Amino acid sequence: MGCRTNVLHLLSDEAKIRKASPIKTTMKYFTDPNMVFLGAGMPSGDMFPFQNVSFKSVPLDDKGTPVIEGCIDRNVDNLEIENDVPLDLALQYGNSRGQPKLLAFLKEHMSIFHNIASDDWDLITTAGSTQAWDACLRLFCNPGETVLLEDYTYSSSVEAAVAQGLNCVAMEMDSDGIRTDKLEEMLRNWDTETQGPFPKLLYTIPNGHNPTGCTLHEDRKPTLVKLASQYDFVIIEDDPYYFLQMNKYGDPELKMPDDVDEEQWLKENLVDKLGRSLLEWDDFGRVIRLESVSKTFAPGCRLGWAIGPRYLLDHLWNLHEVSMQSTCGFAQTIINGMFQRWGQVGYMRWLLKLRNSYSTKRDFCLSQCQKYLAKSVCTINLPASGMFFMVYLDYRKHPKFSTDFCSDVDLLQEHLYQKFLQSGILMACSSWFRVDPTQKNTLAFRGSYASVDPDKMQRGIELLGSVIQTEFCLN
Amino acid sequence: MGCRTNVLHLLSDEAKIRKASPIKTTMKYFTDPNMVFLGAGMPSGDMFPFQNVSFKSVPLDDKGTPVIEGCIDRNVDNLEIENDVPLDLALQYGNSRGQPKLLAFLKEHMSIFHNIASDDWDLITTAGSTQAWDACLRLFCNPGETVLLEDYTYSSSVEAAVAQGLNCVAMEMDSDGIRTDKLEEMLRNWDTETQGPFPKLLYTIPNGHNPTGCTLHEDRKPTLVKLASQYDFVIIEDDPYYFLQMNKYGDPELKMPDDVDEEQWLKENLVDKLGRSLLEWDDFGRVIRLESVSKTFAPGCRLGWAIGPRYLLDHLWNLHEVSMQSTCGFAQTIINGMFQRWGQVGYMRWLLKLRNSYSTKRDFCLSQCQKYLAKSVCTINLPASGMFFMVYLDYRKHPKFSTDFCSDVDLLQEHLYQKFLQSGILMACSSWFRVDPTQKNTLAFRGSYASVDPDKMQRGIELLGSVIQTEFCLN
Repeated sequence: MGCRTNVLHLLSDEAKIRKASPIKTTMKYFTDPNMVFLGAGMPSGDMFPFQNVSFKSVPLDDKGTPVIEGCIDRNVDNLEIENDVPLDLALQYGNSRGQPKLLAFLKEHMSIFHNIASDDWDLITTAGSTQAWDACLRLFCNPGETVLLEDYTYSSSVEAAVAQGLNCVAMEMDSDGIRTDKLEEMLRNWDTETQGPFPKLLYTIPNGHNPTGCTLHEDRKPTLVKLASQYDFVIIEDDPYYFLQMNKYGDPELKMPDDVDEEQWLKENLVDKLGRSLLEWDDFGRVIRLESVSKTFAPGCRLGWAIGPRYLLDHLWNLHEVSMQSTCGFAQTIINGMFQRWGQVGYMRWLLKLRNSYSTKRDFCLSQCQKYLAKSVCTINLPASGMFFMVYLDYRKHPKFSTDFCSDVDLLQEHLYQKFLQSGILMACSSWFRVDPTQKNTLAFRGSYASVDPDKMQRGIELLGSVIQTEFCLN
Repeated sequence: MGCRTNVLHLLSDEAKIRKASPIKTTMKYFTDPNMVFLGAGMPSGDMFPFQNVSFKSVPLDDKGTPVIEGCIDRNVDNLEIENDVPLDLALQYGNSRGQPKLLAFLKEHMSIFHNIASDDWDLITTAGSTQAWDACLRLFCNPGETVLLEDYTYSSSVEAAVAQGLNCVAMEMDSDGIRTDKLEEMLRNWDTETQGPFPKLLYTIPNGHNPTGCTLHEDRKPTLVKLASQYDFVIIEDDPYYFLQMNKYGDPELKMPDDVDEEQWLKENLVDKLGRSLLEWDDFGRVIRLESVSKTFAPGCRLGWAIGPRYLLDHLWNLHEVSMQSTCGFAQTIINGMFQRWGQVGYMRWLLKLRNSYSTKRDFCLSQCQKYLAKSVCTINLPASGMFFMVYLDYRKHPKFSTDFCSDVDLLQEHLYQKFLQSGILMACSSWFRVDPTQKNTLAFRGSYASVDPDKMQRGIELLGSVIQTEFCLN
């Protein structure tokens, strides 16, 4: 289905100009013990001030697992585990695609969770998906060119594109993500006169979409990939919430029984239950997937990875070499140390714990919404993944919408935002996430259940409901 | 002298478009204990898998100082030192300018070493100076605009600019760095027809210049800053080798006596002996200085900082927010932990140790060059700072220069590079660092003494001398 072609013609002017650095060609001699390596600009490893770094984990789960403690020495001869990355290596220049041992673990991890269609895929580390998205924009787009984004999207993603002078075009969504039928229609009827240059890049957050919380339907995924091939564009699949795909609303926590083959059970009960990556349909080499540990470990790690066709990642790497150089060595060696001690099965158990934890939080949040938010004006989506829920309000039912607010949804939104604040609740305005600022047809607020404890959540939603009652004169 | 004006008119189109994110405005409510903070997209800190990270240093010096051990807990209530940054904070979103405690230490450090002229300077963290330079280019330059660089320069710096479609113009240098007289002449006679748009940015590596090893003369610094004001451009002072300013060639190591006031002695014998930053003359707010721990700690930390006018750093911050977001939290909390335990005086002692270590390496390297490299064809500069030395060869004395190599310096260079390699020495070709590729008037190779042990150094330089003997038929 479809012919395998490359997309080099879609690269930006800057990516086309950028070449691998000649000095990089010298690195192949670095491990030659007979070579006197005078040519490199590496500072003396003898003068790195760290003897070692250590880390201690929290318990993996409530099954009495001991905490994990790891100590990574500077010297390769003093490693606790063969697959650790010694500090002398982790903190030196070089390996700018990522430390090989970490890359190997991540590739194996990817292969467990994704049946990648291409046989020439690769994986390189990033400094997190925000950095990677900025880099992908630089890789493909010249100022004035067109990027497709979901009609609401992560505000930083659209801000990055707008500042680069790109033409950001919104794709219609429903509760199952991008309306691929509408997208096909838009592409088929694309008018460069009124809509700008034909799109080069499509950006999607398929799971637990930020801000709407919705998840792209499985049936739409092959269609999306096919459209990329048919209409000649590249898809950036930004999927930080992949492992926050939750249990069904109201279901109990998913617990692993004691007497099972852990790997087998996790395969059937975790891996097989998750949605698929677009990479699974990408025979065409048009998808770059962005993952990160920001939601599975912590955002401050600034460690993520891009997966996609090797030749495209080579171009991404060329950009990294002259910008961020490499992902932080502390993050790489510490997280690799945790991965190697957990192993793939241990990491899957952590991901299961995460799934249960977020499911519980979401369930409680939604139960409070159902209890306190007036159904006559509020619609709440039911997120199947991620950290976010949206409260949609029927602005037409606000008694002063057409008078005090001149039928301007954004004016009413700003008013309500302030009212919420005055009552002690901070919600994010949907307008902050809008790709097309002229489309003022929805009044909604984004909330997150990720890091709010139950007491505060109960109080917050109750207060929210009370402000809405008052504002919409529902008493 | 000169009027204080801002340089907002020099910002790139992208920097002018880029606004602070509206969602960032919510962060001011984050610490309000009465606010139910539903609006932020922060994952649950409860689910960060780390209880703590620890580090152990090497001994600070040979005066019997104990090694430093630090353990940074996730919980602010369990900190060993008040000024540590707990993991829960270091690994969460937020504080994208840098962790406040680290920023405070760095600002104090800057104030010890630099008498900054401006009274409205600020400091924000970067992911190292390569990232910061890329960001500065994005901040000021549109494709086609002009950047001034030293005629040889760090290859990544010119590659970043070239790929962005910039017009890279070489500034003439001598052994004291940029020839400010020639620069003034070039600016005065700038012809946009033949030379491109008038320069917006000047890039300099003032100490231990990469690749030439030379250091900008103190007398030229005020002139350079004055030219920026007079001719309306911004200077990026990339100074990673500042603390690799070495002792005089042949001098013994600089040892702190036992019975002195440490701070006072270090002030007089270290701080006061170092060259000044261009910031010391920058009444005009036209200098951004880039520092990093890549040479004082280790490159893999990917931690640096930019110092300059606050309003310019705000624009840099806006770019960081939609690209790298923040510097890695592990790097920040570990390096802050080391700084806080060392204190400013302890860190100065480390910098003294570094100075002595590099001085010894350089002295040995130069003694070998003097011993083995034929003076009739080789000229060696004497680096006062940094990691690099250059071997200049008189190509006119190569017997086959005009015949086999058609009087092409680069062809001869490639030939010699391969001959060196075959003999087991890797030197970097000067052509890799050339800003203007048409200026083939120098045959030189960059070497580094930073990370080569004495045995290998002796053998390498001896081999180098022997290849040169053979090639130039000096026997």
